[in-house]
Amino acid sequence: MDYQLYYWPGIQGRGELVRLAFEEAGVAYDDVARRDKGAITRILGGPAPRPFAPPVLVAGDLVLSHTAAILAWLGPELGLPPDGARERLHAHQLQLTITDLWAEIHDTHHPIAVSLYYEDQKVEAERRAGHLRDERLPKYLGWFEDHLGDRPYLYGDRPSTVDLSLFQTIAGLTYAMPRAMAALHPRLPRLAALHDRVAARPRIAAYLASPRRQPFNPHGIFRHYDELDAPA
Amino acid sequence: MDYQLYYWPGIQGRGELVRLAFEEAGVAYDDVARRDKGAITRILGGPAPRPFAPPVLVAGDLVLSHTAAILAWLGPELGLPPDGARERLHAHQLQLTITDLWAEIHDTHHPIAVSLYYEDQKVEAERRAGHLRDERLPKYLGWFEDHLGDRPYLYGDRPSTVDLSLFQTIAGLTYAMPRAMAALHPRLPRLAALHDRVAARPRIAAYLASPRRQPFNPHGIFRHYDELDAPA
Repeated sequence: MDYQLYYWPGIQGRGELVRLAFEEAGVAYDDVARRDKGAITRILGGPAPRPFAPPVLVAGDLVLSHTAAILAWLGPELGLPPDGARERLHAHQLQLTITDLWAEIHDTHHPIAVSLYYEDQKVEAERRAGHLRDERLPKYLGWFEDHLGDRPYLYGDRPSTVDLSLFQTIAGLTYAMPRAMAALHPRLPRLAALHDRVAARPRIAAYLASPRRQPFNPHGIFRHYDELDAPA
Repeated sequence: MDYQLYYWPGIQGRGELVRLAFEEAGVAYDDVARRDKGAITRILGGPAPRPFAPPVLVAGDLVLSHTAAILAWLGPELGLPPDGARERLHAHQLQLTITDLWAEIHDTHHPIAVSLYYEDQKVEAERRAGHLRDERLPKYLGWFEDHLGDRPYLYGDRPSTVDLSLFQTIAGLTYAMPRAMAALHPRLPRLAALHDRVAARPRIAAYLASPRRQPFNPHGIFRHYDELDAPA
């Protein structure tokens, strides 16, 4: 099967969760918009039914959007755990909780409108960021910490797409809010260990060291604005 | 199968999308927290793995959270369309787009924090509401309008959970922002007709006229604050 991923060029964004699944599985994929900047416009502007937003995965005649839906389909396709309909449904709930958390993280720097620059909603962003740091991150991350238990990964001895997504969540938050995450770190030993365990997977380590891994930057979902981090 | 739905008592909220599926299918369900106010605390406070947030559906030994995940499982279980794995995956993408739209609608009256009262984020809410009305609603609803085409329902001659959810979206927005929706109405003839078609389904009409249907009110996701609607 040939796989084409369509995602905004220049950022990791939500597309990174799909990339990590391919990379962990060692399966090739065409990251279309990184070599062809008009690709996103074409796939979003096509005849109905067209996807609402990237990421979009094309696999044969399947055109699939929404990160969690892509991963629910792609995980089994790539042979990633978990096995079994019931456990996959469980993983999908966790993935959808990550979707919600990421939406809250995004809206922290864009609390008023995606169409406005950060600088035009900075006052509101600073106000929202305090609630993210003090209420929402402890609630979400604490819930995942509880879920992890003492297993190396959520569903056994290999990472699922949820484990890969938790790695990316911790990596992104540590880039965006290093002081807030340092303060939370003692309460999240399992998530911290999971992050390190995923980063050390041979294929993931090779990916992170390759030019395929784009750096975090101030255009993605995880953005470092010093004034949104915990006070120094 | 016995079904128990756990959702915040006193509001329609996201739980309503699950209720509408049961009502259209004519299948009984126990709306647990409406008769037992401590039920939500118990199910969220139980041992891990516990759900992150309501709605939660319990069916036998299955405990399932996230509205879109519940509907992806429940639709086929209740015999609602579509049939076939590929079309169900398509429906799930549309349902997840509704999830995203509802999150934006919610955050319009809560742009800073869910833990703050509306009155404490009213200035920011008024600013965000303008972007919702002028940019986001036309984008989302226009996209669904395109998808509907000329069929009575998205997947044939009976409503899917997506059709039921679109009914509720139009009903809720019309309650919350009557002037903005009146202005959009000429551009959304298919969605308006779908809303009326669903409301006239015998089981849905009976539900809407029953005490099981709670009224819209200023505590749910769809809230009418005159200052957030389009200018008079």
